[in-house]
Amino acid sequence: MERQKFDAVLQKKVKEIEEIIGSFLPREEGWQRTVLQAMNYSVLAGGKRLRPMLMLETYRLCGGTGKEIEPFLAAIEMIHTYSLVHDDLPAMDNDEYRRGRETTWKVYGEAMGILAGDGLLNYAFETALKAFEAVDATDAEAMGRIVRALSVLGHNAGIYGMIGGQTVDIEAQTQESPMTEVQLHFIHEHKTGALIAASMKIGAILAGASAEQVRALECCAENIGMAFQIQDDILDVVGDSSELGKPVGSDAQNSKQTYVTLYGLEDAKMLVESLSEEAVEKYLRSIDGDSEFLEELIYTLVHRRK
Amino acid sequence: MERQKFDAVLQKKVKEIEEIIGSFLPREEGWQRTVLQAMNYSVLAGGKRLRPMLMLETYRLCGGTGKEIEPFLAAIEMIHTYSLVHDDLPAMDNDEYRRGRETTWKVYGEAMGILAGDGLLNYAFETALKAFEAVDATDAEAMGRIVRALSVLGHNAGIYGMIGGQTVDIEAQTQESPMTEVQLHFIHEHKTGALIAASMKIGAILAGASAEQVRALECCAENIGMAFQIQDDILDVVGDSSELGKPVGSDAQNSKQTYVTLYGLEDAKMLVESLSEEAVEKYLRSIDGDSEFLEELIYTLVHRRK
Repeated sequence: MERQKFDAVLQKKVKEIEEIIGSFLPREEGWQRTVLQAMNYSVLAGGKRLRPMLMLETYRLCGGTGKEIEPFLAAIEMIHTYSLVHDDLPAMDNDEYRRGRETTWKVYGEAMGILAGDGLLNYAFETALKAFEAVDATDAEAMGRIVRALSVLGHNAGIYGMIGGQTVDIEAQTQESPMTEVQLHFIHEHKTGALIAASMKIGAILAGASAEQVRALECCAENIGMAFQIQDDILDVVGDSSELGKPVGSDAQNSKQTYVTLYGLEDAKMLVESLSEEAVEKYLRSIDGDSEFLEELIYTLVHRRK
Repeated sequence: MERQKFDAVLQKKVKEIEEIIGSFLPREEGWQRTVLQAMNYSVLAGGKRLRPMLMLETYRLCGGTGKEIEPFLAAIEMIHTYSLVHDDLPAMDNDEYRRGRETTWKVYGEAMGILAGDGLLNYAFETALKAFEAVDATDAEAMGRIVRALSVLGHNAGIYGMIGGQTVDIEAQTQESPMTEVQLHFIHEHKTGALIAASMKIGAILAGASAEQVRALECCAENIGMAFQIQDDILDVVGDSSELGKPVGSDAQNSKQTYVTLYGLEDAKMLVESLSEEAVEKYLRSIDGDSEFLEELIYTLVHRRK
């Protein structure tokens, strides 16, 4: 696909996803409206909508055509967003700005930051449960697919997924010894990898893919997550701060263990190549269907310069 | 039922529930074990196990005999516990002690307090989803009951339930004008009432009760929640601090708006009577079945002296 054409298609798809997410956000009314405003402020702060995008594209690649995917698109973005809202809190990373805007706690106060995060996590499950409304209530098989998708969402967002990764990350920040390779892998595999894997896995499950296909797409997502993270570390060394919109070299300044300090710059770059190639050639292409956009999306993500 | 006999039965039932809850707690192992320890520390801090108790008794009253109730008993206690863990945080109520033990954030640090709360909320949904394993995967009707129970759990714990109440409570604490009657009702109805209502509603739904019965038991629970809260306010005025294990008169000292300041002591007492009487006579007894223990439990709860 040509670069220009891809960008236009991407933009259209982001718009479609943002409309779907928006349709599931709470209306800012009632006595508790402050927490609703704080939730919507957080979700509407922008971002690549990467997780719902991967979910929807995987769903379509596997032949899905229903509406039961829509609540899950919103749910995964709510979970991703709540994790950022809580990560930014003073007791966690203490960040006042994200994507050029003040963070949720900075605008609404710390207590409301905690409640808005809780609200988003809880509402993510409430929203995903709406998927049952899109299928026939006597169709046990369709219901079973949604149950499996909900279980993946819960597992990968929780203590054996994202929250597990956040825990090890927080602890590693205060330990005296440098982070080990095992810790680094664990953190990235869980903190960012688990939600990306959940996205593609849920898309496949809801579309009725076979167990083999679901597993292949999960492997694909794991490669993407890892390549994405390594590229992040590479950009902190070789990136252009004006393109990135944030200073580079911060990892080195903080003597942070990264994939670049672990493998060296050249090997890290090679790893990004081989991981993304494997994601596409070995896993994605094992699925029958039109994966052109998804392939392009993967290469764009892992080769991004910002 | 005689007082002594009731106490013995109650003790046995609490033990049964604690065993069920314990069977769903995560094992404290793996790289992320700190957050698992913090979660278990919080859940095992004790308490009346009121919500799972009401849920299980309602389930049995409505004729339920299955295993699909068990994950929900654990889930509602996890949600109740996470709300306390987050409420105790320095940015919220800043409490260092609860039930004679240090609060979770005080033992594990603030960041881990946030993550343990998130972990419990997320794990509550993961746990409740296990209910599907207890029913036949081709039985759409049984699956549908679990879906409805999950929706009630999500709704009543979230922004239109408990989190909504917490939001208004936090905001009322910093407003200059005294709390209005509407605010006071909203807070209690949502912050504590919603989970109590969810408990009885879920018990009834899972047991296959009719829509009319579910509604009656929800009304019963709403009365209990309200009576329970008014009694709390009464005890702060007339209670014995050695029995209560906490100082009395703290509400008056903080010029806090309560049901006693709102209605006066005598009217508040009469309201506790009429609410609990209505809960039992009008709503609970509308259900065919042995409600003796549940009736006794309700009277004990609302007439408690500590």
